Amino acid sequence: MSNYIRYSYTELEKFCIDCFNKFGFKEEESRIITDVLLLSDLYGIESHGMQRLVRYHKGIEKGLIKIDAKPDVVYETPVSAVIEGNDGMGQLISHKAMSLAIEKAKKTGMAIVTVRNSNHFGIAGYYAKMACDNGLLGMAMTNSEAIMVPTFGRLAMLGSNPIAISMPAEPYDFFFDASTTVVTRGKLEIYNKLGKPLPDGWALDAKGKGSSDASDVLKNIVAKNGGGIMPLGGETEQSGSHKGYGYGMFCEIFCSILSMGLTSNHTHTGGKGGTCHGFIAIDPKIFGDAEAIKEHLSTFLQELRESPKSEGQTRIYTHGEKEIIAKADRLKNGIDVNINTVKEMFDMCKYVGLNPVDYLGDVKFEDASESSYN
Amino acid sequence: MSNYIRYSYTELEKFCIDCFNKFGFKEEESRIITDVLLLSDLYGIESHGMQRLVRYHKGIEKGLIKIDAKPDVVYETPVSAVIEGNDGMGQLISHKAMSLAIEKAKKTGMAIVTVRNSNHFGIAGYYAKMACDNGLLGMAMTNSEAIMVPTFGRLAMLGSNPIAISMPAEPYDFFFDASTTVVTRGKLEIYNKLGKPLPDGWALDAKGKGSSDASDVLKNIVAKNGGGIMPLGGETEQSGSHKGYGYGMFCEIFCSILSMGLTSNHTHTGGKGGTCHGFIAIDPKIFGDAEAIKEHLSTFLQELRESPKSEGQTRIYTHGEKEIIAKADRLKNGIDVNINTVKEMFDMCKYVGLNPVDYLGDVKFEDASESSYN
Repeated sequence: MSNYIRYSYTELEKFCIDCFNKFGFKEEESRIITDVLLLSDLYGIESHGMQRLVRYHKGIEKGLIKIDAKPDVVYETPVSAVIEGNDGMGQLISHKAMSLAIEKAKKTGMAIVTVRNSNHFGIAGYYAKMACDNGLLGMAMTNSEAIMVPTFGRLAMLGSNPIAISMPAEPYDFFFDASTTVVTRGKLEIYNKLGKPLPDGWALDAKGKGSSDASDVLKNIVAKNGGGIMPLGGETEQSGSHKGYGYGMFCEIFCSILSMGLTSNHTHTGGKGGTCHGFIAIDPKIFGDAEAIKEHLSTFLQELRESPKSEGQTRIYTHGEKEIIAKADRLKNGIDVNINTVKEMFDMCKYVGLNPVDYLGDVKFEDASESSYN
Repeated sequence: MSNYIRYSYTELEKFCIDCFNKFGFKEEESRIITDVLLLSDLYGIESHGMQRLVRYHKGIEKGLIKIDAKPDVVYETPVSAVIEGNDGMGQLISHKAMSLAIEKAKKTGMAIVTVRNSNHFGIAGYYAKMACDNGLLGMAMTNSEAIMVPTFGRLAMLGSNPIAISMPAEPYDFFFDASTTVVTRGKLEIYNKLGKPLPDGWALDAKGKGSSDASDVLKNIVAKNGGGIMPLGGETEQSGSHKGYGYGMFCEIFCSILSMGLTSNHTHTGGKGGTCHGFIAIDPKIFGDAEAIKEHLSTFLQELRESPKSEGQTRIYTHGEKEIIAKADRLKNGIDVNINTVKEMFDMCKYVGLNPVDYLGDVKFEDASESSYN
């Protein structure tokens, strides 16, 4: 792991909080954003953790993310709310939105809160987990810059549109968080960096034909030239492409449609963010004995884990198990951060007037002259 | 189409209603069951229409489906209910359950009704459409006999676990109804009848390895020998297998877990049905102007249909479009019923004491001697 530097959770936490404070957020706000970011790294979802920090900072610099924006509840019933994000920080708007859904669900049994004109909110699972940590069934979704090409299409029209769902269980809460595309853009970026051809069934070129050229696909996505990532289920109806496209629509309905916000094909165009989210909280109590329901789910998950394995496999995972194991390991042994990300963090520190060595140690970079902030 | 006989909708409707009356259902009940069955044929989902009639009858004969069972609401709040099906006819229990969800949603804004100890309910989409026809966002799900093998497993532990969602839009309501397996058992049966090898990424043999042998896979499923159908996303995490498995869990949670019913791996064992369903109705009004929301969805669906096509493709469909076109065509031109299904319908008629020629005409079968009811 020579391309990685290991930091403790508390080191990264202190670094993040001080950075966000420096960007202009209040201490309490910086703590929320940091918590979302670092849960991603703890869960092993590298693409949405420290690696994302600099992109948030650049969004703030460009004025796409507004530090002082306050989310407004523009419509409300005892079981619902619509929040206008006013282009604020996605994590802060979303934390507020899910907190509101939880508060309402505890009173009425369930609630849905939709959000428009927000920004990237980190991992969807964080907010589903918020509900789960309160004993509720939680769901969180977001649309995003268009990256999913609908079945038979050649232009990206939907986002990666993740759907997350979490529900209390022992010994591992159920926690499912996945894009409705077959893979995320982050996966393509990794293949691109490694110069590896993409597997079949992942991406499409500008004409809408299967492509193994990560670099070409990524360039086309940015330029909105056509092409992008396939829905879960791949390219054809035979492999279920229309189903992944359907789950992408499911997400879009609970985010942009029910908030009257921008659909994925209109977000991130013309200098606009406009990301939309959806949050659902359901109290299992409205179906009877919540403890018995939790036990029922726990039993089924255990049966799944204990069921016979495919030849050559030693373990069947239930959703959330890997994340909880990863979190325990990383809290104890630290979090590995990619050297390129550390370099970006150094440059950003200098740019905002913090001394990176105080936080990240005296790291020697191969090319220390070039700053991404020049 | 020499293997098919075409009947008008009204011919099949009269036939079905008289059959269900003869089975012992009340006229009003027979009409509901018929409506569910025939919507499937109208929508082009042959596997869940007339083809299924004889299987329902056999279920009744075996005592798995109880004609006189009355569903009981065993737990209720203003936004929820749990229904004990008492092994009744799935369509009747489900029609009642979704009607209750709709009634509650119209009062409170949204509602979830879960059902346990029911039977096969036909197409999930029928019930989602019930909510949609009432101006609501509707969802319907069901678990079923275990057929989906979890990622890295070799024993089917989840059902085909379809999720349906429908929402008002112009000119085509959004209507998505799909199993969370890559394909349904019906698809395997078609390949088996044709003697065609299964495509890669559909099914697993008894050891949990990819199999193209439809006959072997189907036999193993019945015998619970191992093997089955892959989750949407196929066999490996690279193609997203864990995501289809996650959507299967999503369905299971809203069906068996929140009703305290049998999970798929326990349904249809030891002479027991025990199918569980979940129904959700949400009034768009709780997010503001329902008409504006409908228009917003309609616009996005239109943009999808009009977006650039992949090379060689002429059309991008939105979910529900194909079904609505098929329905208009079949109402006008009739419904094609497979000759083998017609033969079963003839045999069943004779068995229950109806004259098949009165309903289905004087059909000559190649092997008229063998009755499936002998």
